[in-house]
Formats: sequence, structure tokens, C-alpha cells
Amino acid sequence: MQKRRYAEDAMRTVFQSFGYQEIQTPTFETLELFTAKSGEGIIDELYSFTDKGGRELALRPELTAPVMRFYVEKLQMEAKPLKLFYFGNCFRYDRPQKGRYREFWQAGCELVGTDTPESYAELISLAYAVLRKTGLKDITINIGNLTILSSIFTKLNLSKDQQQDLIPLIDKAQFDDVEKMLQQFGVPQEDTKKFLDILQTTDIKKLSSFVQHDAQAQQEIDLLTTTINLLPLFNVKNYCLKMSIVRGLDYYKGIVFEIDAPNLGAEKQLCGGGAYELIPLFGGRETPTAGFAIGFDRTLLALETEKYAFPSSTLTTYVIPVNEAAIEQSFTIVQQLRSKNIATDIDLLRRGIRKALKYASSINAKTAIIVGPQELKQDAVMLRDMKSGKQELVKLSTLPKKFQ
Amino acid sequence: MQKRRYAEDAMRTVFQSFGYQEIQTPTFETLELFTAKSGEGIIDELYSFTDKGGRELALRPELTAPVMRFYVEKLQMEAKPLKLFYFGNCFRYDRPQKGRYREFWQAGCELVGTDTPESYAELISLAYAVLRKTGLKDITINIGNLTILSSIFTKLNLSKDQQQDLIPLIDKAQFDDVEKMLQQFGVPQEDTKKFLDILQTTDIKKLSSFVQHDAQAQQEIDLLTTTINLLPLFNVKNYCLKMSIVRGLDYYKGIVFEIDAPNLGAEKQLCGGGAYELIPLFGGRETPTAGFAIGFDRTLLALETEKYAFPSSTLTTYVIPVNEAAIEQSFTIVQQLRSKNIATDIDLLRRGIRKALKYASSINAKTAIIVGPQELKQDAVMLRDMKSGKQELVKLSTLPKKFQ
Repeated sequence: MQKRRYAEDAMRTVFQSFGYQEIQTPTFETLELFTAKSGEGIIDELYSFTDKGGRELALRPELTAPVMRFYVEKLQMEAKPLKLFYFGNCFRYDRPQKGRYREFWQAGCELVGTDTPESYAELISLAYAVLRKTGLKDITINIGNLTILSSIFTKLNLSKDQQQDLIPLIDKAQFDDVEKMLQQFGVPQEDTKKFLDILQTTDIKKLSSFVQHDAQAQQEIDLLTTTINLLPLFNVKNYCLKMSIVRGLDYYKGIVFEIDAPNLGAEKQLCGGGAYELIPLFGGRETPTAGFAIGFDRTLLALETEKYAFPSSTLTTYVIPVNEAAIEQSFTIVQQLRSKNIATDIDLLRRGIRKALKYASSINAKTAIIVGPQELKQDAVMLRDMKSGKQELVKLSTLPKKFQ
Repeated sequence: MQKRRYAEDAMRTVFQSFGYQEIQTPTFETLELFTAKSGEGIIDELYSFTDKGGRELALRPELTAPVMRFYVEKLQMEAKPLKLFYFGNCFRYDRPQKGRYREFWQAGCELVGTDTPESYAELISLAYAVLRKTGLKDITINIGNLTILSSIFTKLNLSKDQQQDLIPLIDKAQFDDVEKMLQQFGVPQEDTKKFLDILQTTDIKKLSSFVQHDAQAQQEIDLLTTTINLLPLFNVKNYCLKMSIVRGLDYYKGIVFEIDAPNLGAEKQLCGGGAYELIPLFGGRETPTAGFAIGFDRTLLALETEKYAFPSSTLTTYVIPVNEAAIEQSFTIVQQLRSKNIATDIDLLRRGIRKALKYASSINAKTAIIVGPQELKQDAVMLRDMKSGKQELVKLSTLPKKFQ
């Protein structure tokens, strides 16, 4: 928990420094909210249940739908852009495995009411900054665009069903299989080759040739180019074009991005985000929206894989009354230190110096304060360094200063 | 959320300064865990459901049972005393009303492995300190003892059923009805009078007379007396004996206490706690346990009732590029300030100074930085105080210092 709170605080600091405000939504919502967003198919992956009033409910599997539901109900009149971030737990009925839990935590945000390139650049840089602030070093950003990809699908004359078959192969980067499938679909070999090239290129200039006749796609290429060119301003490193990002084609649109921790192997994706459209679906007035979600548990796994040196959990001092007569004075000392937010514990078991010192070691106390009648006569206590074992007589009046 | 996180952080600081470590348990547990603790009757108040694997689960209604379940499974070998605190959400299927929500938050702790009077005094002082640290002023502590109360019930020859009938009346302080019921039960008038006196007295010395022949009760009176006498050492104020505390007689035993915010009226109870016995029920080795839970939502209501001045939510500065050419330089400034954790936002909508300043006002920005070509020629920007409207030309090199 200490590591988790440390990373959570780091993330929160960054969201706030970017002008985002925190929002919290209920743990469960109506089942309908999630099926509206993702289709009936999602029910298999949900913890859903009927409550005592006959309502169909579900533990939230993610936070974008709940936040947008809240936005439509309560926040539509707020000044734009509206910058909201969240930190919350989510639930999926799924086989648990490393980096995939049935209850898991997400940190994320939604940006409502702006679609300028600098908005997207800032959003990507925020995701990057949030992850970097936790102490994570080795992360890579991939940026794609679903509007351009859709335009290419149209150009290749692929039906919706054919696209559905193709998408999982693109997602898994099984490009040989993509090639075979396109051949089956009767796509001309030249177009197939060009498409495979686009899926694998990191050169944004190559995109134009394929969608010359589609003005909207051309506009998205300009947006993508400007956005990517703005990233160095934010000190963002390790970003790359990746047109094979196909995640959530149902509600994402335009720019999409993913951030990976390559060290994590198969479960390396830490963050996914992009522009999306949900507000009209929930009955709100259309306005541009974008956001991202970071897998918090995976971020911690990535930090551990990098052997990140989390601040260690230490108790500043442990107070030991040597006998019953010293208990009162000991608690007075404890009270004084705690009131200055100095983490202080005290022997509650009256177990004598030797056992109490052993306990102080076991809970990583940095120092011990031994309160005995001899020292109290001189208005002093014995301060012991738990590591070196060195002891010094310290006057009660100067004790708090020792810890500041 | 800003108020909530502020109060949460304040509480966490105090738990840690008392040597407590944070623990987090899952949002749902097996239904059996909660019926084992509280009986089948609790099912009516639970969000319970059957998962896809046929398991009977429940959203946790409180955190003591989950923490003790976790203790028995994983923490029995830890050095004692073990000090655990938590901050988590709980669920009750109940009619929502002011201060009673279907999803609500609790902050609390469990102290395992000690039962000295100083342990209980420290525990009570911790609950007091946690609430006080949030900024709350008007709170009162009531301290009772269920072992003594049980001993009196035995002395009055009351059957279990009779006790069950009596307890709700005692809990609601309906002492006239208690008197009538005791008469019906055939309790001698003198004993009834004595009992009613004990339920309402604040004088601990009066307790002894009734339970002279019960050694265990006498011992509890000594424990209670020593515990209460230790409280001034911890700067605890506004505490009082209250033998009519009957909460959770099924698993609490010995010392119990409640903390109220009198300003909240009917829903004034903020905290309940005491010594209890759950570990053997969950299959663990018996060891003394005590703890308390604070209603977090109610604590916030109490703070609002006291008109507590929460730190206000302000954005340090809002950057306004006056034209497109200034966007790049503006983001460089933003990046520089954010990297120093200075909460900085920027106009993402390219909307011109007047509208951007209006927006900056609406989000409570303290200052605005206007980035224009004229000023940039002098390596400077215009810094505007949003309250006074005063502007000053500030060199880029000295800008971050303005916010430190």
C-alpha cells in the first residue's frame, strides 16, 4: 500500500499541475450504461447483478462511460474545456493472470470541449508525464489515427464484416495473416502491399498517398502531423507513429495512442487513449472529447520490474517505557512527537527493553527512545540509533528537534 | 473531491504518525464472511449477488471482517502488536438519506495483539486525533464497557431474549421504556432504579456497587478507569462515561466507544469502536483485538456544518497565447512551470485574450500569463493578477520564481 499510495500521489500531482480536477463516480452503474457503450458482448466480461429493487447493475469495468454519464447529467454547463481526472477501481470477470486482475485500478482523464492539435499533444504529454512521475523510465508511446485507418478500409472496399475479421489480426501484428486475408477478400496485391507498409511505417509522410481523395482523412493527417510535431515541446520522448492501433474502433475516432512498458512482455500496455464519441450516445450535446486510462497495477509491476527504489517505510522512532512508572512520561513524549507529525510508536505490551528493541527492529524503526527513571531524574531520555546501536542522553526539551 | 482528498490525507497522516500501516482488501468478499460475523439477518442490508462461477458474493458493508479475514490468512505471523488502518468504500442496501448512502466511505483501524489500558487509551486518542486533524472542532467521546453491562444483565437475571428486547431501548436512550420493560420482566424496583442510574451516570465509581461479586466485571472496571485516566495525556477532551452504549453486542466485548458530532442531529455518530472478538470465528489463533471505524461522508458533513474553511481550489496560473505564432513559446512556458509542480493551464481553444481571461476567472486561476509577440521580443510575458487586474512585464528567465 505504501508503494501504491506513493505512485498514486505522484500521478495526482501531475494531473493537477495540468489543470485537471478530480472526479469520483459510484462503483456500480446500470448495466445499460456499459452495453450502450460496448454492446451486449461485454456482459460476459462484467460483474453484473440484479439488486433487491430489480435493477440490472454492473460493477464498472472502466471509468470513461461513468465519467461521461456524469458529465451529461451534471456538468454540461461547465466552462470548456473541462479537464477531469479520476483514480478508481474497476472490475472484470476474466481469468486472473499477471497484470490482469478481477479488481484493478485505473488512473485516467477526460478532456471535454477541445480538438485542437495542441489539445491532443498536451493529452499525450500528460499520460507520459503521469507515468514518468511515478519513477518509470522505460516507456514507449505509439500514436495512430482511426479516421485515417477507416478511410483506408473504405478505399480497399472492405465491408464492415471483413473489417471485423481483419482487426484482431492487425491488433496482434500478425501481418502475414493480414496479407492472406486481404488476398481472400480480393484486394489487389499492390493495395495490400501499400496497406501493409502503412501499418508498419513510422513515417507519417507515407500516409497521404493512400487517402488522397478523402478530404477528412487528409485533414486528420494534418492534425496528426501537427500534434506529433508539438510533442518535443513537452519533453516527450520515445514516441512513434503506429497505424496498426485498432483499439475500440467502435467509439474511438481520430487520434489514438498507447503507452507500453516493453519490460512487461505480453501484458506491456500501460495506457490507452484517444479521441472518442460517447456524449451523444448518453443524450448530451455533441462536443469533442478525448482521454486516456492508465492501468495502475501494471504501472506498479513495471516499476518493480525496473527495480525502482520506492521510498522505504520507516517509523521515525519507537518509545520504550522501561517500567510501569515510566508509562505516563512516555505517552507525554509520544503525544508531543505525534503532534508534530513525527511517526512515533510505543511499546503497548510492557515487555521490557530487550523484547521491545527486537520489535522496534522488526517494524523498521530508525531510532528508539528509552524512558527510564534514571534518565528522567535528569529530565532526559536515552535516544538509540537502531542501526548503529549508538545511544545518547537527550534532554526532553530538545528531543523533538532531533527529528526535524 | 478536493475537500474529500484533503480530509483523507489529514486522516492518513495521523494514522501513520501513530505507527499504523495501511491495508487494502477487495471490494467484494464471500457472503459467508459477513453472515458469519453478523448473522443471516444482515443479508437484507447487503448488496449480495451470485457470480458467473456460482459463488455467493457481497459488496463489503464494513471493513473489520475483511481486514480480520486477511489477518487470519496472511498476517498471523507478524510481530505484535500489529497496527493496521484502512480507507475504503462500503455498501449497504438501505434507504438513502442525509449522511446514510448506499455507497459510503470508512476510515478505520484494527489493533491486534494487545489489551493493556494504554492500548485502549491510545486507540481512543487516535480516533479523536484523526477527526480533529481534519479540522473538526465540536466532537464528544462516549466510553462504555460491554463486559460490565453483560455482568449487570446476568445480575438482573435477564434471559438472552429479554436482553435482545431491552437493547434497542437502551440504544435509543428511551429509559422510561426500559423501566417499564424491566418491571414486566419482574426485576425488583430497587435493582431497576440502580440499573437506570448506571445507564445514565458519568461517574465511573458508581459501577462497582452493582457487580461486586463478579471478578471479571471488577477487572473491567479497573481497566476502564485506568484507560479513561490516561486520556488527558493524549490531549483528548470531551470524553464521558456512557454505559448505555450497546452497539454490536454480538462481537464487541469489553471497552466500547463512540464519537459524535452533536451538530449533525439524528445522524450524529461519526465513529464507533472498541475491543472485539472475530479472529477465532475466522479460524485464527485467539489474540486481543480492538479497532474503530469513522464514517468519512458524515465527517465531511460535520465539517461543512461547522463551516470549516477547506483550502480553496485554485489554479496557480493560466497561460494565454495571443495568437497562433505564440503557441509554441506558450507551451514551453507551461512545460517549465508544470515540471516544478506549479498548477498551470493553457488556452487550448485559441479563443483570444478576452474570452480566455473570462475562462481563467471561471476556473479560479490566480494569475494569467499573456504571451504575445511584443513582449516576446523583449524575452518577456505579461503577468496578470486575476483579482486586481494588475499586470506586470516579467522576463521569461525570472517567471518560475514568481510562483515560488
